Amino acid sequence: MKEKTDILVIGGSAAGLVAAMTAKSNYKDKKVVLIRKEEKVMIPCGIPYIFGTLESSEQNILPDGGLINLGVEIKVDTVISINSTEKMCTTVGGLSISYDKLIIATGSQPAKPGWLKGSDLDHVYTIPKNKIYLDELVSQLKTYKHVTVVGAGFIGVEVSDELNKRGLAVSLIEKESHILALAFDPDIAIEAESILKQRGVNVLSGVSIKEIQGKGKVSSVLLSDGRNIETDAVILSMGYHPNAQLAQASGIHINEKGFIVVDEFLRTNIPDIYAAGDCAEKRDFATNKISTTMLASTACAEARVAALNLYKISTVRKFKGTIGIYSTNIGDSSFGVAGLTEEAAQKEGFNFVTGKFAGIDRHPGKLNNPHKQIVKLIVSKECGRILGGSVLGGVSAGELTNVIGFIIQGGMTISDLLVSQIGTQPMLTASPAAYPLIKAAEAASKNL
Amino acid sequence: MKEKTDILVIGGSAAGLVAAMTAKSNYKDKKVVLIRKEEKVMIPCGIPYIFGTLESSEQNILPDGGLINLGVEIKVDTVISINSTEKMCTTVGGLSISYDKLIIATGSQPAKPGWLKGSDLDHVYTIPKNKIYLDELVSQLKTYKHVTVVGAGFIGVEVSDELNKRGLAVSLIEKESHILALAFDPDIAIEAESILKQRGVNVLSGVSIKEIQGKGKVSSVLLSDGRNIETDAVILSMGYHPNAQLAQASGIHINEKGFIVVDEFLRTNIPDIYAAGDCAEKRDFATNKISTTMLASTACAEARVAALNLYKISTVRKFKGTIGIYSTNIGDSSFGVAGLTEEAAQKEGFNFVTGKFAGIDRHPGKLNNPHKQIVKLIVSKECGRILGGSVLGGVSAGELTNVIGFIIQGGMTISDLLVSQIGTQPMLTASPAAYPLIKAAEAASKNL
Repeated sequence: MKEKTDILVIGGSAAGLVAAMTAKSNYKDKKVVLIRKEEKVMIPCGIPYIFGTLESSEQNILPDGGLINLGVEIKVDTVISINSTEKMCTTVGGLSISYDKLIIATGSQPAKPGWLKGSDLDHVYTIPKNKIYLDELVSQLKTYKHVTVVGAGFIGVEVSDELNKRGLAVSLIEKESHILALAFDPDIAIEAESILKQRGVNVLSGVSIKEIQGKGKVSSVLLSDGRNIETDAVILSMGYHPNAQLAQASGIHINEKGFIVVDEFLRTNIPDIYAAGDCAEKRDFATNKISTTMLASTACAEARVAALNLYKISTVRKFKGTIGIYSTNIGDSSFGVAGLTEEAAQKEGFNFVTGKFAGIDRHPGKLNNPHKQIVKLIVSKECGRILGGSVLGGVSAGELTNVIGFIIQGGMTISDLLVSQIGTQPMLTASPAAYPLIKAAEAASKNL
Repeated sequence: MKEKTDILVIGGSAAGLVAAMTAKSNYKDKKVVLIRKEEKVMIPCGIPYIFGTLESSEQNILPDGGLINLGVEIKVDTVISINSTEKMCTTVGGLSISYDKLIIATGSQPAKPGWLKGSDLDHVYTIPKNKIYLDELVSQLKTYKHVTVVGAGFIGVEVSDELNKRGLAVSLIEKESHILALAFDPDIAIEAESILKQRGVNVLSGVSIKEIQGKGKVSSVLLSDGRNIETDAVILSMGYHPNAQLAQASGIHINEKGFIVVDEFLRTNIPDIYAAGDCAEKRDFATNKISTTMLASTACAEARVAALNLYKISTVRKFKGTIGIYSTNIGDSSFGVAGLTEEAAQKEGFNFVTGKFAGIDRHPGKLNNPHKQIVKLIVSKECGRILGGSVLGGVSAGELTNVIGFIIQGGMTISDLLVSQIGTQPMLTASPAAYPLIKAAEAASKNL
């Protein structure tokens, strides 16, 4: 079957969805087709919650309403080739579809390390963004008493906490000294780890997995320190790899980390072909170095930039590099980071100072489920610009992390912060006289 | 008694506290004295909560620890004169204290309109920042069944909701069409009003108070539409006036609204005398017109600027005008605004567009006490800059309002927003693909 579209988007997760919607709503007269593999697409960041809080993965589906209402045509199919000369894609379903502009948003898949002996045993899982696979995993959980999660990044931590909520015994193995060690400095990571332990997760940090053992199916994991942990199942959350094979096979350049090479307008080396999201190359906002950070929120920003610039380029609407704005939640506590941590700033050779303040996220501190609130800022000594910040707090820590994200994106300096205005309310925020973000800026300014 | 200090601060509420702390921590070798009237200072924004949620005003005291630890000397006394030639203040307690630098932070007091007949009856109250007065009011509440609050600004609304929590019948009278009408556009104000009504407060908007009636003490209030509301007590929350008499008597200039005239370094017309907080002149960030907005958070920012610039002036640490970043909470819902509303932008003659989006503050929407989240942005047509924004949401709406506050202060444009990165987390924020702030920016950009 042959078809024709103006704009073709491959991939239906965060980047594909936003690319298609942005394209269609900005170029109303263009036909937009989105081809995705999945009948139902999982909300990527919501996946850990299908293991505990949510009743089923059906509660974690990315709605199609936005696409449909705008008039984007959705096809459930798998693209198997891109012919960039003829500007045509072919699919498993036998479709040949020609395009004027192509956006590749093929995402990423979980790393399953080849070196890890036993990783092919039964009851060893990863966390792909695949509803059928995940539903099977969830249904198997009932038969397990003890699950071992390997890798304590955001997904590993969230999955562990959720499995624990469901009453499973959970061991979480992390080779770094602390959980979330790549995202947070030790001061925050240690607090997160301590809370996760208090909640009953058996956190084993500073030790790596050597082998998964069992006959046919998992029976235990062997750690680098010789310990052997009996377990019914293993979930590997050891990072993700970009899905770039399709692009690579069509002659699109791939970088040394396996991502599709793009410029600040998300253009690949081939005219009229764009890439966005986990599969697209990222550069760090502060260092401009190649980055491997994959975030749904960054994916959405990239998709928006790609789609806005398909037919009319705007120099003020280009992507300025990945900042890395994360947050997570463990019990009543939340943790967020935007931009560089102290460790990253050190490693990258920035000349910087830090400032930190611990307060409370209500005023007075008796109101409305108060929570300790800590803010730590990383400030360039050269120019006073805010390079990064971390937050520990309650539910509002997520948006407070976004405050720091916008301070970084706005190029604001420590002086800007010291004279800045904030809005405060007793039931909602810290006190204006002891607002941790501003107090952290004060502390940093004294170190300058 | 004669004393001498380097830096003298008059006033112990938000501005006085922050001025003294900032001064002492930035000029460690200077002696800093803070003179305040009150033995115990109320947290200003927390006052409404002593009428309901808090057990007593003792839970709403601004702690002195920060001042004491830094080495600021606190005196409980009342300054009665400033001799700016001799650089000396005298107090009720018989103290003559000379200063090198003086910061006036005398705050504000509630308006009690002279035109309002019956406002001098017993059981007619205002909400001053005075613990003794407020404790008496709280103790009297037990003897009342029905209280009428006049004026539905933030304080009137919060006090009404708190009195209602304590089981009192509450009528809230507002002469504008809706509660919070000066802070919010009707779309948000109507939602706030509807929630307050659902919670049981008898909201009477679009009607003004004509007279308070009673013999000796209040028995009813007469409204402009002829209705007569029987009531045991009346609380007037009809705005605040700056306390500038002390300054005025010493020859410091006062503007036509009664505020102490200051420049962007919070300097008065008299050398070495500064003013900050509710008593100090404010200019609007967007229009540069004289403003009457009084906010503890703005007061703190002004105090910080004044104190930082006492002995060494910094051109990058000046106050850029009042933005007006507010938030409040009614039940499970929260409301925030930063910068201009649509009505204000219209009235001031800005050439602007708006964009609005309604989503949910979690993703998927089943997680962790989800709440509808609405963001509305006001965008300059001339330059694309964000002039203001409003938020309706759950607890995190306070910090989301601060996100908008920093976007305004960073001078960010609609294009900056469209390509900006945010951090999202299922339990803490809206979805990255439907983050209301970004979707509102998209909507506004389509109107440009």
